[in-house]
Amino acid sequence: MSVTAAKGFRASGVAAGLKTTGAADVALVVNDGPSLAAAGVFTSNRVQAAPVKWSRQVLTGGQLQAVVLNSGGANACTGPQGFQNTHKTAEQVAGLLGLNAGEVAVCSTGLIGLQLPMDKLLPGVDAAAAALSADGGEAAAIAIKTTDTVHKVATAGGAGWTVGGMAKGAGMLAPGLATMLVVLTTDADVPAAELDAALRAATHTTFDRIDSDGCMSTNDTVLLLASGASGISPGQGEFAAAVQAVCADLARQLIGDAEGASKDIAIVVEGAATEADALEVARSIARNNLLMCAIHGEDPNWGRVLSAIGTTGAAFDADELDVAINGVWVCKGGAVGEDRDLVDMTGREVFITARLNAGAETVTVWTNDLTADYVHENSAYSS
Amino acid sequence: MSVTAAKGFRASGVAAGLKTTGAADVALVVNDGPSLAAAGVFTSNRVQAAPVKWSRQVLTGGQLQAVVLNSGGANACTGPQGFQNTHKTAEQVAGLLGLNAGEVAVCSTGLIGLQLPMDKLLPGVDAAAAALSADGGEAAAIAIKTTDTVHKVATAGGAGWTVGGMAKGAGMLAPGLATMLVVLTTDADVPAAELDAALRAATHTTFDRIDSDGCMSTNDTVLLLASGASGISPGQGEFAAAVQAVCADLARQLIGDAEGASKDIAIVVEGAATEADALEVARSIARNNLLMCAIHGEDPNWGRVLSAIGTTGAAFDADELDVAINGVWVCKGGAVGEDRDLVDMTGREVFITARLNAGAETVTVWTNDLTADYVHENSAYSS
Repeated sequence: MSVTAAKGFRASGVAAGLKTTGAADVALVVNDGPSLAAAGVFTSNRVQAAPVKWSRQVLTGGQLQAVVLNSGGANACTGPQGFQNTHKTAEQVAGLLGLNAGEVAVCSTGLIGLQLPMDKLLPGVDAAAAALSADGGEAAAIAIKTTDTVHKVATAGGAGWTVGGMAKGAGMLAPGLATMLVVLTTDADVPAAELDAALRAATHTTFDRIDSDGCMSTNDTVLLLASGASGISPGQGEFAAAVQAVCADLARQLIGDAEGASKDIAIVVEGAATEADALEVARSIARNNLLMCAIHGEDPNWGRVLSAIGTTGAAFDADELDVAINGVWVCKGGAVGEDRDLVDMTGREVFITARLNAGAETVTVWTNDLTADYVHENSAYSS
Repeated sequence: MSVTAAKGFRASGVAAGLKTTGAADVALVVNDGPSLAAAGVFTSNRVQAAPVKWSRQVLTGGQLQAVVLNSGGANACTGPQGFQNTHKTAEQVAGLLGLNAGEVAVCSTGLIGLQLPMDKLLPGVDAAAAALSADGGEAAAIAIKTTDTVHKVATAGGAGWTVGGMAKGAGMLAPGLATMLVVLTTDADVPAAELDAALRAATHTTFDRIDSDGCMSTNDTVLLLASGASGISPGQGEFAAAVQAVCADLARQLIGDAEGASKDIAIVVEGAATEADALEVARSIARNNLLMCAIHGEDPNWGRVLSAIGTTGAAFDADELDVAINGVWVCKGGAVGEDRDLVDMTGREVFITARLNAGAETVTVWTNDLTADYVHENSAYSS
């Protein structure tokens, strides 16, 4: 499972004391090759953490020998010193394992605006290097958790080759290009350009289409490393499908574990004139606090769906809008439809379908409800 | 006070049984002239309630003889029958008072997607007409409340003339052009075109710059009626300033009574290249759920301010951003600034200043924190 499901990878997760709880907080993933091909996708937030700036630069070469990750501190908005700390961390990994620091990606997650305690992090990197193993994927997935209640791993693949991955993310979860921290590995022999194409296609319809709280992170990173250790070069379509499957699985797990959530909600927009229209409408619905409170209360309050659609620039006629909640068309032609009392919202999953009747495009965005638990968790996060 | 502070107006508020609580729910405001000049500003939501469609049409003539308002039902997303009900309500007022229905505005507020109970509303209109008085402004302000805990009234003016007004609004409070329901009256003798200019200028920097929960209503309406009963025609600048003062007062009261709020928060964006940039940044900060939770918890979590700024398209350099919370510059040059422990957030008002250092434009947007009470109130609203 996780990043060591594919051959050619070792990983580890250890506790370095960055988290006051004593939980694991440093993870390391190493690609033993023979291939070092890699691709990455990063946050589109214009305020970017030091490790994002570093790793984006590293990836321009299309190769990664290792990824070092820490929870317990985002190293975002930390100025030149923060960037030096990221650089030092990569150098430490390179020195220990005989690698080139310019091929070591760094990922951080946690509170924004605090310097990482390097006196704890660097010994943690030493311990992580010592703990590397071909079974270490699970430990690595655990070490990158922040407010996640469970760790997230997934695998897919074909005959003789595998794509595996791990992810973390529970709040500030509205990826612009990727979500919090995700590392995918494969033992397929795939060149960097093809990895990049497969990764961008997959994130576009998976991580880019989850939107927990409308808040985009400064640290979002998705990396894909290929060791080629299987000796197999799958067909491009088959490989892309496996990457897509792992990304979709992890994205769904992230929403299922969103901070304070009691409902996982699929916003399905149908009949849009363009994909961009469909996405704009879906995000507007997903980010409507009033609606997300109503769903928490199991109230099929479709008026809030229409008021959210009405704030968008998408092509539609207000008198042609249909809305279904869990299969009951409570709104037809922009007005009252089937009896709202027929809607059963007792389950964890809720499906809201908004039909614009303006074209043929459909998208699905996953989100979750807004709860008092979310408020409690996020009003005490850094204190 | 309220809409009867200015001479030439009568008003009333009565209970018609639209609200199950038995509280007042129908208000009537009548302009006895001699002037009937009026102006209005309506929601920019593309899904618009029947009374918004009606009143927008009525206002094209630049005159209003009366405004009838109801709480207990928004009459939004109610199809042709909803529009007929609005029309019938205006006809009822016109018939009772000998007016032209084409000069009677209608405003509704409450749950979206339910037909108004006309068997209760029309007798309520009869009672409201019978109760009209020159002291009725307060009763009218009370009758338009929904989840408001207090009614909102304000006055301003000059020598011998007055501008008065009332407002309601507690949730779905992110006006695109106006907020929920506001009626302003003046006894100044001002032509419709000048009323319109003064009203648009005032709403642009008052109601348009409060953003409680990012959710734009289908029913937002602001009306300004001038009776000319003072016989005074103030200077254009003096009159516009009075309208601005009443709008600013009412807008601030709306934020102060926002659903579940425990903090009133001013987002001050300084040093923007354009006003549009400043507004985009201010709204992005105001709508950041994570930040609004942090402020509820009295946590000066400035990293969430920067992550919100980073999602905008405004002109700025991430390494040039400064952020102050209640006067303490916790972020300087995009990184750690003064000690966050110096920030005192125990008061009800919180000031967040974001300095973009990209120009000379400044705007202030008022919002409020996100609380468990907001979630509770809005997860049970229609049940």
